[in-house]
Amino acid sequence: MTRTLGVCYYPEHWPESQWAVDAAQMKATGLTWVRIGEFAWSLMEPTPGTYDWDWLDRAVETLGNAGLKVVMGTPTATPPRWLVDSMPDMLPVDAQGRTRGFGSRRHYDFSHMGYRDACRRIATAMGERYGRNPHVAAWQIDNEYDCHDTTLSYSGAAKQGFQDWLAQKYQSTDALNRAWGNIFWSMQYDTFDQIELPNLTVTEPNPAHVLDFRRYSSDQVAAFNRVQVDALRPLTDTPLIHNYMGRTLTFDHFKVGADLDIASWDSYPIGFLSDRIEGTTKEKQTYLRQGHPDNQAFHHDLYRAVGNGRLWVMEQQPGPVNWAPYNPAPLPGMARLWAWEAFAHGAEAVCYFRWRQAPFAQEQMHAGLLRPDSEPAPALGEAAQVAAEIAAMPDLDHATGSAALIFDYESAWAWDTQPQGADFDMFRLAFAAYRALRRAGLSVDILPPHTGDLSAYKLVLAPGLMTISDNLRAALATYEGIALIGPRSDLKTRDMAIPVPMGPSLPDTDVTVTLTESLPPSDKIKLQGGGRFRHWFEHLDGTAPVHLSTKSGQPAIMGGDHLRYLAGWPDDATFDGIIGGLCDAAGIATLRLPDGLRVRDTATTRFFFNYGPKPVTWKDTIIPAAGVHWEAL
Amino acid sequence: MTRTLGVCYYPEHWPESQWAVDAAQMKATGLTWVRIGEFAWSLMEPTPGTYDWDWLDRAVETLGNAGLKVVMGTPTATPPRWLVDSMPDMLPVDAQGRTRGFGSRRHYDFSHMGYRDACRRIATAMGERYGRNPHVAAWQIDNEYDCHDTTLSYSGAAKQGFQDWLAQKYQSTDALNRAWGNIFWSMQYDTFDQIELPNLTVTEPNPAHVLDFRRYSSDQVAAFNRVQVDALRPLTDTPLIHNYMGRTLTFDHFKVGADLDIASWDSYPIGFLSDRIEGTTKEKQTYLRQGHPDNQAFHHDLYRAVGNGRLWVMEQQPGPVNWAPYNPAPLPGMARLWAWEAFAHGAEAVCYFRWRQAPFAQEQMHAGLLRPDSEPAPALGEAAQVAAEIAAMPDLDHATGSAALIFDYESAWAWDTQPQGADFDMFRLAFAAYRALRRAGLSVDILPPHTGDLSAYKLVLAPGLMTISDNLRAALATYEGIALIGPRSDLKTRDMAIPVPMGPSLPDTDVTVTLTESLPPSDKIKLQGGGRFRHWFEHLDGTAPVHLSTKSGQPAIMGGDHLRYLAGWPDDATFDGIIGGLCDAAGIATLRLPDGLRVRDTATTRFFFNYGPKPVTWKDTIIPAAGVHWEAL
Amino acid sequence: MTRTLGVCYYPEHWPESQWAVDAAQMKATGLTWVRIGEFAWSLMEPTPGTYDWDWLDRAVETLGNAGLKVVMGTPTATPPRWLVDSMPDMLPVDAQGRTRGFGSRRHYDFSHMGYRDACRRIATAMGERYGRNPHVAAWQIDNEYDCHDTTLSYSGAAKQGFQDWLAQKYQSTDALNRAWGNIFWSMQYDTFDQIELPNLTVTEPNPAHVLDFRRYSSDQVAAFNRVQVDALRPLTDTPLIHNYMGRTLTFDHFKVGADLDIASWDSYPIGFLSDRIEGTTKEKQTYLRQGHPDNQAFHHDLYRAVGNGRLWVMEQQPGPVNWAPYNPAPLPGMARLWAWEAFAHGAEAVCYFRWRQAPFAQEQMHAGLLRPDSEPAPALGEAAQVAAEIAAMPDLDHATGSAALIFDYESAWAWDTQPQGADFDMFRLAFAAYRALRRAGLSVDILPPHTGDLSAYKLVLAPGLMTISDNLRAALATYEGIALIGPRSDLKTRDMAIPVPMGPSLPDTDVTVTLTESLPPSDKIKLQGGGRFRHWFEHLDGTAPVHLSTKSGQPAIMGGDHLRYLAGWPDDATFDGIIGGLCDAAGIATLRLPDGLRVRDTATTRFFFNYGPKPVTWKDTIIPAAGVHWEAL
Ligand SMILES: [Zn+2]
Ligand SMILES: [Zn+2]
Ligand SMILES: [Zn+2]
Repeated sequence: MTRTLGVCYYPEHWPESQWAVDAAQMKATGLTWVRIGEFAWSLMEPTPGTYDWDWLDRAVETLGNAGLKVVMGTPTATPPRWLVDSMPDMLPVDAQGRTRGFGSRRHYDFSHMGYRDACRRIATAMGERYGRNPHVAAWQIDNEYDCHDTTLSYSGAAKQGFQDWLAQKYQSTDALNRAWGNIFWSMQYDTFDQIELPNLTVTEPNPAHVLDFRRYSSDQVAAFNRVQVDALRPLTDTPLIHNYMGRTLTFDHFKVGADLDIASWDSYPIGFLSDRIEGTTKEKQTYLRQGHPDNQAFHHDLYRAVGNGRLWVMEQQPGPVNWAPYNPAPLPGMARLWAWEAFAHGAEAVCYFRWRQAPFAQEQMHAGLLRPDSEPAPALGEAAQVAAEIAAMPDLDHATGSAALIFDYESAWAWDTQPQGADFDMFRLAFAAYRALRRAGLSVDILPPHTGDLSAYKLVLAPGLMTISDNLRAALATYEGIALIGPRSDLKTRDMAIPVPMGPSLPDTDVTVTLTESLPPSDKIKLQGGGRFRHWFEHLDGTAPVHLSTKSGQPAIMGGDHLRYLAGWPDDATFDGIIGGLCDAAGIATLRLPDGLRVRDTATTRFFFNYGPKPVTWKDTIIPAAGVHWEAL
Repeated sequence: MTRTLGVCYYPEHWPESQWAVDAAQMKATGLTWVRIGEFAWSLMEPTPGTYDWDWLDRAVETLGNAGLKVVMGTPTATPPRWLVDSMPDMLPVDAQGRTRGFGSRRHYDFSHMGYRDACRRIATAMGERYGRNPHVAAWQIDNEYDCHDTTLSYSGAAKQGFQDWLAQKYQSTDALNRAWGNIFWSMQYDTFDQIELPNLTVTEPNPAHVLDFRRYSSDQVAAFNRVQVDALRPLTDTPLIHNYMGRTLTFDHFKVGADLDIASWDSYPIGFLSDRIEGTTKEKQTYLRQGHPDNQAFHHDLYRAVGNGRLWVMEQQPGPVNWAPYNPAPLPGMARLWAWEAFAHGAEAVCYFRWRQAPFAQEQMHAGLLRPDSEPAPALGEAAQVAAEIAAMPDLDHATGSAALIFDYESAWAWDTQPQGADFDMFRLAFAAYRALRRAGLSVDILPPHTGDLSAYKLVLAPGLMTISDNLRAALATYEGIALIGPRSDLKTRDMAIPVPMGPSLPDTDVTVTLTESLPPSDKIKLQGGGRFRHWFEHLDGTAPVHLSTKSGQPAIMGGDHLRYLAGWPDDATFDGIIGGLCDAAGIATLRLPDGLRVRDTATTRFFFNYGPKPVTWKDTIIPAAGVHWEAL
Repeated sequence: MTRTLGVCYYPEHWPESQWAVDAAQMKATGLTWVRIGEFAWSLMEPTPGTYDWDWLDRAVETLGNAGLKVVMGTPTATPPRWLVDSMPDMLPVDAQGRTRGFGSRRHYDFSHMGYRDACRRIATAMGERYGRNPHVAAWQIDNEYDCHDTTLSYSGAAKQGFQDWLAQKYQSTDALNRAWGNIFWSMQYDTFDQIELPNLTVTEPNPAHVLDFRRYSSDQVAAFNRVQVDALRPLTDTPLIHNYMGRTLTFDHFKVGADLDIASWDSYPIGFLSDRIEGTTKEKQTYLRQGHPDNQAFHHDLYRAVGNGRLWVMEQQPGPVNWAPYNPAPLPGMARLWAWEAFAHGAEAVCYFRWRQAPFAQEQMHAGLLRPDSEPAPALGEAAQVAAEIAAMPDLDHATGSAALIFDYESAWAWDTQPQGADFDMFRLAFAAYRALRRAGLSVDILPPHTGDLSAYKLVLAPGLMTISDNLRAALATYEGIALIGPRSDLKTRDMAIPVPMGPSLPDTDVTVTLTESLPPSDKIKLQGGGRFRHWFEHLDGTAPVHLSTKSGQPAIMGGDHLRYLAGWPDDATFDGIIGGLCDAAGIATLRLPDGLRVRDTATTRFFFNYGPKPVTWKDTIIPAAGVHWEAL
């Protein structure tokens, strides 16, 4: 696999005289890709139906002639003012019932059919113009679905779409009433048009109602994306890509990814540490200028699965950003480390965001590779270094990980809907499991919930799956490694109800969750041998062997040689112990890594990344802060 | 007094074939009562005006034939969809102006006359059908008034009702303007229809305006309830009951209770500890699986007064619930302890909620006596044990407590409206006083604010009464025990103004509050001899003797032998000292109880309840965690 | 300069028989001024167009005959109900889109032209009636602009006014689009009526859009105020005053002040400490009953500049207030200390709020000089003491301070709009700088941002100025003292963009901010020699000398002998060191003051104020808690 670098560029932000200069400097830096076009609808179509491609033709030509490959973005995240004026009901509505207006971006409703038509039109026009342009080597559709909480809209369009979707799914309100359990609290409906969106109810709405709305909303993202895929496919042979965000679980990325060729994501390690990763103050201090040492890896592995093996980083943080609560600068070296880490996890390309810091508008405080005055910003040199290093190193082949983690978006919606404990969150749980695998030095693959073959892995974790899919259950039935299922796995029907007989329903494994407890942060369940569960504990019953017990004698892990059920949420040290034991039993070699050091294996090479703020020693090698080290395997 | 157990049951949730099995098992467990019917409006009246009683007839028959007595609930907390569609303005509106829609429960406005008519109709129809049914032995009207903050609605119906209520009360806007002091800030009204509800003003509205709206809103709850009382009274001779909630102060329970025969409440000790009781992290840890050791007692004593001596627990927590921030399981034994504690406080019946955990809809994670798969949940055995113990023990007679606490809902609204210090809250203050009495081992009666006879008590506490009623003032004038009034008592007129001469106006006791201070949590007023006031301190003036002073020499308690005024909010240890001194002076014996142990006396028996997580020793008896112990008096 | 005392009085709140008694007691206390009239519109004009001046004539006569001078307030902060009913769209709208209704005060939209007409009418009528009344010696226009967050309104009137304002400013949408950088995210407008107010966008709106709305909103306050100025000017020769609030930065006070004769403010030291001043728990404990030791001084110095040298305190806290989260009583002596401190800072008058505590309505828990029952409250005696002390002391002449601080409202809006770090706030930064100057014993003048002459000062601080004005840049070019500019100064254009070349642009000083970092509270940048920056750090480049470096070797202060740029936000101890060094270099004598002691010099006298809770010793003098001490200079 070849590895390449790129950058995000907005020619429309700069005088045309600057374009060739910029292009030459990009090329000199060693960049391959330049992403353009997204957000420029108002220039492409300044008035309804009148396109102006001249400027964009020249931009593509200038960049292409400099030897760069263009990633062309469709501008549908930023519909122009005139388009909104032509159909004001295309605006999304928040859960409080307030219309979310024009004046920033993503001001559209995924459910609005008129807006879908407009997107089909602009994507078709772009495809016709640039689909066969020799400089355009890839396409990005829209930008960061769900960014600014835009998956869910409580608009009239969403309500009508949801009612139709329910009618399709259930065919009769009787069936819907039965599936949702609407006999509870006299919530039955007689007609589909009585069913409102599940916001602004007196107390919590039926969780089945909410979950179906979450499924509906996710489906609209996929359908919205598919409109542009269908428009572009006949017009280009280059790969179609979307750039996902970090810790975004509101739509099923696997479903969107199925229609695309490559999954990319926008990696802002420091911003994400500040605004969306749990952590103690000490952890946040330690990694202030590096980002969480496992967060990038998790998303690389997740999106590699979403991309069916093909992964890019479409936006890579180069310096301080503008949008997190606090915005420190990266430790020198991190812009290099993050790129190499992406490559080690299988990324084909890493594009820094953005070429030159824009001195105006919302993102004026977002660093680029160049300063607003065109002087080099710190990351430019690191990008050039990575480019040189890539050139010097043979291709890397991706290797299957030694362990796998099953990750399911629908479960995230289920637990959002009924967390049962204030701290229960799907990402948080899955990330806790992932981090434990990483701390053991394992390379991990993330698998979708409908996975039907686990045979490549000696160890599989499946935390928090509301329902185990038929495929996965079949795979588990013949699995010869060790699968650790739970906590909170296979305890719901697809209708968001408790199954009777009660779950989990694991092949040849008699274990039942009879009662569930959630715990405040101040409390814990002590385990035999010193560990503890936090947040969550399930009472297990059944005849399966007990592998681990609580201090008071309740089962903590039960199951057979291959399938085991985990009854609680282990804290980090406890998870380390559990994973260590499973690796021993499964015959997986683990590593004892110094704090902050992380590892990822490709087919031939082991990469080490020092996320810590101080040098660490690995065997005989001192790896500096922000250092990258690699060894042949 | 006989003591009985019961359970809440929803036959409509289960196949009819299950009903007889369930009934037999209820009976075998030793249960007397089964509550049904509430929430089932959509089955009773599936389409407008067409009733279907067949299923309910059969359910009553099945349960009755098994030897159970039915508590029949009116379903008015869950109006069906078609009813809402027929008059959409029956929906309540929140303080932000958003309509609170269909899709959960309690989606009605207490002020809406059309909905009152609909409730009268369904209650009448039910009364006609079941009022003389031999198996129906009690009625519950509606369910948990105010649950989900539904007492206050800012709807058109409420606005019109409030204007009419004001016109009735004041007869002229001149009178209203004078009473409210509307000359302040040019707030005078010329007509009653100019008066809006007191939400969404630029800054705080006139507190007299708010207080009248609180009174109006409380009156609507009473009037709403009375509609069904009036419908059912001619149709049945069995007692009419409502099930109140914990720490719910938005309507005057004494006024609602005056129309009913029994007060019941829904007791969720662990959920309430998590979501509505102040406490340190350590306290919350200690009582995580037991609930606050005084909270149940307080509500038993309060609702016994609301019920004019007749008390039930209509819903008793049996295991983890679904609605608190964190939902741990009770300590084994607590489902028994809570029942016995209720009996010791005079409860005639304790009904567990619910028979079988529903696997669907909002409360699917709420435990029952049975699991969703009909296996026994932990509380079933404890319920059976209580049933056996009841059978073995002679009737208990209620005894008047040794001390009394005056509790006033209107004062709670007054202090909500103008807390003056962010931590001032009526429940919190009254509960602090109650807890001090309990820690001294006293059995307490709670009395309404219009109490006219205190002669049964040697000690009376009256904290936080905005205005002392004429009845109470007369009782105090001849009182021969010790009454500790204050803090913040008798300092307002009924018009929510400061009286001139300034209060309190205590018979033959020259003491005046001249200035009031509220304090942040980090500060305190030190007292002579080591105690301290928190949150609140009043400067006292007058010629009455000073019983306690602050360290700086200001009066802390002033008054004569019988009536004393307390100038601040003592912390727990200080309250213990004050109560100890008063008991000595009043000739009341106190107990020195180990941490977590609580006591309640009936006429013949002293009951001990160990709320602590560890065994305690009382004299020669070791009382285990969650243990109940009793001795003859 | 003479110093006088006064009081706020509401004759309409009291029986007319009381007026003469009150007036005589005011006079006997030594008061000069009595402020009346504000809030009494409903009495002045009980029905549309019908004025009733009789009561007010008699009140003025009674007060004047007692020897008091009247400050007459226009009642435009409290439009009566009938006026609102006549034009309901005069009500303001909050950022969530909710109309802010009648029922308290300040229920008007600054942009509403109909309301401006009504204000012109009532002000004219008052001016005609009382403009030449010999007892009326000053006028107050409206009351506390912006109180309750009323500067910003998101109403239809505001939207239309904003569009007109933009059209005036930019003349074409092309110019506006360029100035705002609307090419970013396709935000261009074709017509001005497409431009909405910058609320309820999907994510943050363009900061240039927000900043222009902030400027527009500030301009409306000035225009609104000017309507009454223009109405009153021809009708009276007495000074026109407005009473500003503490830490209110939503409109440009310098612009409002330019139309008025005196700036007054409402000083509530204890309330402000509780509700709007940052501080550790320990600081809040130490100054609980005194207020922050620098907050009053800061506002005196700021408003003296706003008043072009003429300063009053229109409302002085006399005891506990009703509106802060916690409301303790002042330490005995503070009502005296605050008055003397105001005089030392140049105040001509200090008026206590209010004469007698009102027993009704919103402020019934706000103390006065008298209790509600007309007995003296604690502050009455202190006021009398101040009056006696004034009488015994010759006039004080104001002296120019030894240091100056530039303060800019527009910058406050810019940083509100894009704080870049969650803790960045203009007041907080400026106040940190001011406090450091105060702790060094300096008397400070605050200067507006368009200051063109700094020659009176040896030391000037200019933190947080988004853009240095042409005037100020010219003054700096020839400045011979030491000016410490920054952090975050001169880094934006007036269009809220980053200038290219990048700032700051300091005369003859080659320093450039190349990159900006914001830091969470847990982090810091260590400096050489032991200090630290918090919250904010800028990377500096250039050839100017480095005066201070970070521990890692980056510049912390750069510049020449006269102009230096500060790259971060020093914590208090670090600021003390920096100011100490600058004072040494500038030849300014500093003082080493005990904790809590503060100093202010007039032309002839040095005043000491002990804000601490314990006595301190200054040279040979023991100054008690709340003590005031003065020495000849
Ligand atoms: Zn984004
Ligand atoms: Zn409830
Ligand atoms: Zn104010």
